[in-house]
Amino acid sequence: MGNSLGKLFTLTSFGESHGHCMGVVVDGCPAGLPIAEADIQQEVERRRPGAVGTTERWEPDKVEIISGVYDGHTTGAPVCMLTWNRDIDSGVYRKNRFALRPGHADYTAFVKYGGFNDFRGGGRFTGRITLAYVMAGAIARKLIGRLDIDVFAHTIDIGGIKATTQALAEIKERARENPLWCADHEAADKMTQLIEQTKREKDSLGGTIEGVALNVPAGLGEPVFNNFDGELSKALFAIPAVKGVEYGAGFAVASMKGSENNDLYDIKDGEIVTGTNNAGGVLGGISTGMPVIVRVAVKPTASIARSQETVDIQKMTRTSLTVMGRHDTCIVPRAVPAVEAMMAVTICDFVLQAGLVPRVLS
Amino acid sequence: MGNSLGKLFTLTSFGESHGHCMGVVVDGCPAGLPIAEADIQQEVERRRPGAVGTTERWEPDKVEIISGVYDGHTTGAPVCMLTWNRDIDSGVYRKNRFALRPGHADYTAFVKYGGFNDFRGGGRFTGRITLAYVMAGAIARKLIGRLDIDVFAHTIDIGGIKATTQALAEIKERARENPLWCADHEAADKMTQLIEQTKREKDSLGGTIEGVALNVPAGLGEPVFNNFDGELSKALFAIPAVKGVEYGAGFAVASMKGSENNDLYDIKDGEIVTGTNNAGGVLGGISTGMPVIVRVAVKPTASIARSQETVDIQKMTRTSLTVMGRHDTCIVPRAVPAVEAMMAVTICDFVLQAGLVPRVLS
Amino acid sequence: MGNSLGKLFTLTSFGESHGHCMGVVVDGCPAGLPIAEADIQQEVERRRPGAVGTTERWEPDKVEIISGVYDGHTTGAPVCMLTWNRDIDSGVYRKNRFALRPGHADYTAFVKYGGFNDFRGGGRFTGRITLAYVMAGAIARKLIGRLDIDVFAHTIDIGGIKATTQALAEIKERARENPLWCADHEAADKMTQLIEQTKREKDSLGGTIEGVALNVPAGLGEPVFNNFDGELSKALFAIPAVKGVEYGAGFAVASMKGSENNDLYDIKDGEIVTGTNNAGGVLGGISTGMPVIVRVAVKPTASIARSQETVDIQKMTRTSLTVMGRHDTCIVPRAVPAVEAMMAVTICDFVLQAGLVPRVLS
Amino acid sequence: MGNSLGKLFTLTSFGESHGHCMGVVVDGCPAGLPIAEADIQQEVERRRPGAVGTTERWEPDKVEIISGVYDGHTTGAPVCMLTWNRDIDSGVYRKNRFALRPGHADYTAFVKYGGFNDFRGGGRFTGRITLAYVMAGAIARKLIGRLDIDVFAHTIDIGGIKATTQALAEIKERARENPLWCADHEAADKMTQLIEQTKREKDSLGGTIEGVALNVPAGLGEPVFNNFDGELSKALFAIPAVKGVEYGAGFAVASMKGSENNDLYDIKDGEIVTGTNNAGGVLGGISTGMPVIVRVAVKPTASIARSQETVDIQKMTRTSLTVMGRHDTCIVPRAVPAVEAMMAVTICDFVLQAGLVPRVLS
Repeated sequence: MGNSLGKLFTLTSFGESHGHCMGVVVDGCPAGLPIAEADIQQEVERRRPGAVGTTERWEPDKVEIISGVYDGHTTGAPVCMLTWNRDIDSGVYRKNRFALRPGHADYTAFVKYGGFNDFRGGGRFTGRITLAYVMAGAIARKLIGRLDIDVFAHTIDIGGIKATTQALAEIKERARENPLWCADHEAADKMTQLIEQTKREKDSLGGTIEGVALNVPAGLGEPVFNNFDGELSKALFAIPAVKGVEYGAGFAVASMKGSENNDLYDIKDGEIVTGTNNAGGVLGGISTGMPVIVRVAVKPTASIARSQETVDIQKMTRTSLTVMGRHDTCIVPRAVPAVEAMMAVTICDFVLQAGLVPRVLS
Repeated sequence: MGNSLGKLFTLTSFGESHGHCMGVVVDGCPAGLPIAEADIQQEVERRRPGAVGTTERWEPDKVEIISGVYDGHTTGAPVCMLTWNRDIDSGVYRKNRFALRPGHADYTAFVKYGGFNDFRGGGRFTGRITLAYVMAGAIARKLIGRLDIDVFAHTIDIGGIKATTQALAEIKERARENPLWCADHEAADKMTQLIEQTKREKDSLGGTIEGVALNVPAGLGEPVFNNFDGELSKALFAIPAVKGVEYGAGFAVASMKGSENNDLYDIKDGEIVTGTNNAGGVLGGISTGMPVIVRVAVKPTASIARSQETVDIQKMTRTSLTVMGRHDTCIVPRAVPAVEAMMAVTICDFVLQAGLVPRVLS
Repeated sequence: MGNSLGKLFTLTSFGESHGHCMGVVVDGCPAGLPIAEADIQQEVERRRPGAVGTTERWEPDKVEIISGVYDGHTTGAPVCMLTWNRDIDSGVYRKNRFALRPGHADYTAFVKYGGFNDFRGGGRFTGRITLAYVMAGAIARKLIGRLDIDVFAHTIDIGGIKATTQALAEIKERARENPLWCADHEAADKMTQLIEQTKREKDSLGGTIEGVALNVPAGLGEPVFNNFDGELSKALFAIPAVKGVEYGAGFAVASMKGSENNDLYDIKDGEIVTGTNNAGGVLGGISTGMPVIVRVAVKPTASIARSQETVDIQKMTRTSLTVMGRHDTCIVPRAVPAVEAMMAVTICDFVLQAGLVPRVLS
Repeated sequence: MGNSLGKLFTLTSFGESHGHCMGVVVDGCPAGLPIAEADIQQEVERRRPGAVGTTERWEPDKVEIISGVYDGHTTGAPVCMLTWNRDIDSGVYRKNRFALRPGHADYTAFVKYGGFNDFRGGGRFTGRITLAYVMAGAIARKLIGRLDIDVFAHTIDIGGIKATTQALAEIKERARENPLWCADHEAADKMTQLIEQTKREKDSLGGTIEGVALNVPAGLGEPVFNNFDGELSKALFAIPAVKGVEYGAGFAVASMKGSENNDLYDIKDGEIVTGTNNAGGVLGGISTGMPVIVRVAVKPTASIARSQETVDIQKMTRTSLTVMGRHDTCIVPRAVPAVEAMMAVTICDFVLQAGLVPRVLS
């Protein structure tokens, strides 16, 4: 249960970290969208390891579209995409199966599934689940691209090293030039050094990612329950390790006066805009037409190669555990494409609900 | 669209700020729960104005249960509850109908509904919508009370004045003694002064609320999309003015090391617990059994009695507007019961999904 | 649970036969639809008793719209409509509370709700539930009327007396001239006599209703699960006493050859049509553009004033029961507006899903 | 859109007749159910061709479980099952791509998908879709088997040749002895002869299937919208070629009196039962505990090797078409396992909703 997301543009996720594959069924994409495996592959490449401190597990992550696309276009039928897992080494997971890894979902999974869950590599509780998000996001991105909606994300903080603010256009450009997806290259250098040092210390780092969506039309989302911000936050919390979501001024609103926080309306090129964007592009649960600005807090990788006190759930005894295996010292950069994907997917669903994309494209 | 929430325990909201009523249909409550209008009324009283700086609109907010309860118990049929609006004064809204109030949803509503939305008092975009949440929450609270789940919220920051941390049991106790629902009474005094001063300055204040749920059993929520934290955040963003949601260590995780952030497992009274609770009671989208700790950022009231630059959307001209009417200088305390309600409602749904409550109570 | 229907145009039903009211929340209606209580009242009048053999319970059934409509138009917010119950006499229900009425849902309700269900007048298991359908159908009908979709139903069989077939236009016209909604007036006379006779015999009659929808655009519905015919059948089975649903040739297809049953395509006025309509307007789960023809079997009223063998569920003993109260000898004519309503509601949802109606009307 | 079914036990279907595969994701199955590919394969074998007049397309239909099962048990994660298509010959479909096949969904598909749908072998509009149903049904059947719920279906009419009624236990036994799944072997012989003769005449045959579910506990389903009968009918209409669904006495109720149709309650072995079962096991949308009896009308195969008048949708001209390819003269027997599957799937969902199966099996 709980493996589907969305109302008109829906994702159904399946697959495990060390099982046969990671897959996703995307339903609700209008017919006639040109799509090729290469389009999906391109997005998937962006979440693959490579930067400093990323995992040594080396998966080809080759995308296969096994339904819903014919003759280079979506057919209106559900699109199933998957990548077969290849580089599986479950030995270390078997060995420590019952020693709960701190910060991981071993305990909650055990309680929920009574020990039947596929524990290898975390099973369903794996960062690898974001592969499914990114595959689905690739389709969503193409679809909302028809309305010129542009989604990107960037790293603004790793381990307390903060990127300086820049204009959105610059951020978009400069974040790409960097395996950390950090638009402030000076900060990125410091982050890299910190990651290297932390890796040596057998520890891990968290950070903050900012997602941006440009050209989102005003009017998406619903006032009461299916809010633009509420649905997006739900989608973002589906990314493992996310512990917080905020829009615009976010938690800083607590210290702001209304006179500071209110975004004043103005007219620009015949359009209604606001001078500031403390709202982060959402008011009353509905998009304002200003850039959507969302930030997510990503906790430090739970797997660290240090000895930690824990419990053996089978024996119900205290024990200690050094989590081995192949892990990212800092998962933040690899979560950047996932943030983009969940933004694209959520916006795509709202765009379809608003009737802004025809049911057949041409 | 978008006026229903939940999977097995569902809310359907209806009503407007200055319309006939605010109402909610709660579906999915098992049969046999003792419930009376007084139970609902008691919760509703908690969100009524009264503290310093709250609105002068004086609604009796008398709850009527018009279906789903017979002979003092829920029948298994949908429970419709409503309160009739009485103290309506829409004059000021009519007068300034087309001048967009900064920080309000006037613009997004206009775009979405083409001007047909009931603009009086904000219509659906009203803080009064939380009345529906609180009514539904009252039922949820009774239901999860059967599992000894205890939900409460408290104010931890208003306008930058922060409450000091205390033990959860103390917080629960002391927050009740205060119209601001702030457990740190010293801070509460300063907050009160700040609110009074800010009211004189015709400005408004935001703040932060922390929600706590005790005795939530481990195992609620789903790993991928219907996460405990994701669904709860969606429910919390349905409270007007919420701009951020974080769990446990929240955004602070960005500066933490894995070795600091990981909550180490231990055994206590035969139960698996963690020493710290940086996770805020949720790991892998599933409740851990530790207290659920969630914080929401509440923006300052958008309505301020100062002149603000804005746009007349009918004439498409720049104009200025002083928002009159009856408003709260700081909405934070009145959002506290709403936070509790949304927590209770979300947890109740998960409890039913987990099959922890029978379909017929006795 | 289970009191909501629809995906984009949704109904949430509440209320009981002898409770305060019967109500429905309609969500998803685009803003800007002109609607007045009189529009709804007009439809409600059509399901009120009056024909021979109908109940003596006399409810004013006065419709109140308590949300979602402002200044004569839908606002885009959920529309809550209700009628207060007035003519309630629950004495006979209390007296025989535990003697299971044959053909009624007393037993299933008891099992499901453990005796907590509101048993008075059948509670939720009442024909009066169709009042909610008709109120919601009135809105749906107005909305799909914008696409000239025309929905009507008529009685084609009561107690084995069958109406002869006529052209659809004639049926529509002539069915209105008759409290039985039977277009064959000669058959209607015989039906009336049979009803009178059956009433004298303290027995009851079933029948068959045919629903017709004209001008339904081709392309509504989905091929696999959310079929046009599947969703419509689900909606029709929500009408109490319906025991069968068939489209076009229906169960007669069992005896037909492919060469007889296949509707051959032709071109007429530049449009693709079929000569015959054995498909009843649905192929592959999708509307064909030909008239939608659906028939529902309605069982004889379960309440009959004869002594019947049954069981007292409290004492778990055999007993006999004569069901008193105010009942329809034949519910068929009063189900006709309910069939129309469920057709309108279902088609309306598909029309919105297909994006054929803008989110704001003008 | 429209490729998912169910609330707690859900199916998401993907794949096309001549695409890579037919697949299904089953979500919501509790953890701990022993399951092997052989269990699924066994059910799939039952729907494969073989009887007289069935298609010559010869697919191995080898089931692969690619997620959700580990160490011989379900893990609680979604179970993705698929079979790769092997025996594909799309030549004839390409040749006549724009000549609408009478009785098929070519026209509705063209309108809905603007010509982008995968037309080969009917694409999504293929009888082969029931492979997905049967795979999912195999899991559902195992799960509800834990409550001793027993689902089977049998052919009661082909081309007007009707099987005589027998006791349910005999029907179950005898229907298996026959490739037509007809418990009346004498009738089956006549059906076989009729199929052979009809095949020679290049025509096709329809029929009626009866589905039976034994030991369904009383209390499944909801009174208003999510009726047991309504949801089941929706699931059954998802089987291509189904044109009608009826329960118990079905359409015959039109000619019955209440005194005939009412099933009188009695006590047997301490349980409440009814003497007759005209209700077909459903009252007020809820299962009664008596056998569920449902009948579906299956239209004659649309593909017949005779010349039929039709339209070329590209040229918009009249044309004639002889549908070649490999088809079943009578699809009825191959639909029998699909009826069973949809019954199992629907009942399974209700069983989970009623909380009758724990979230973890043991």
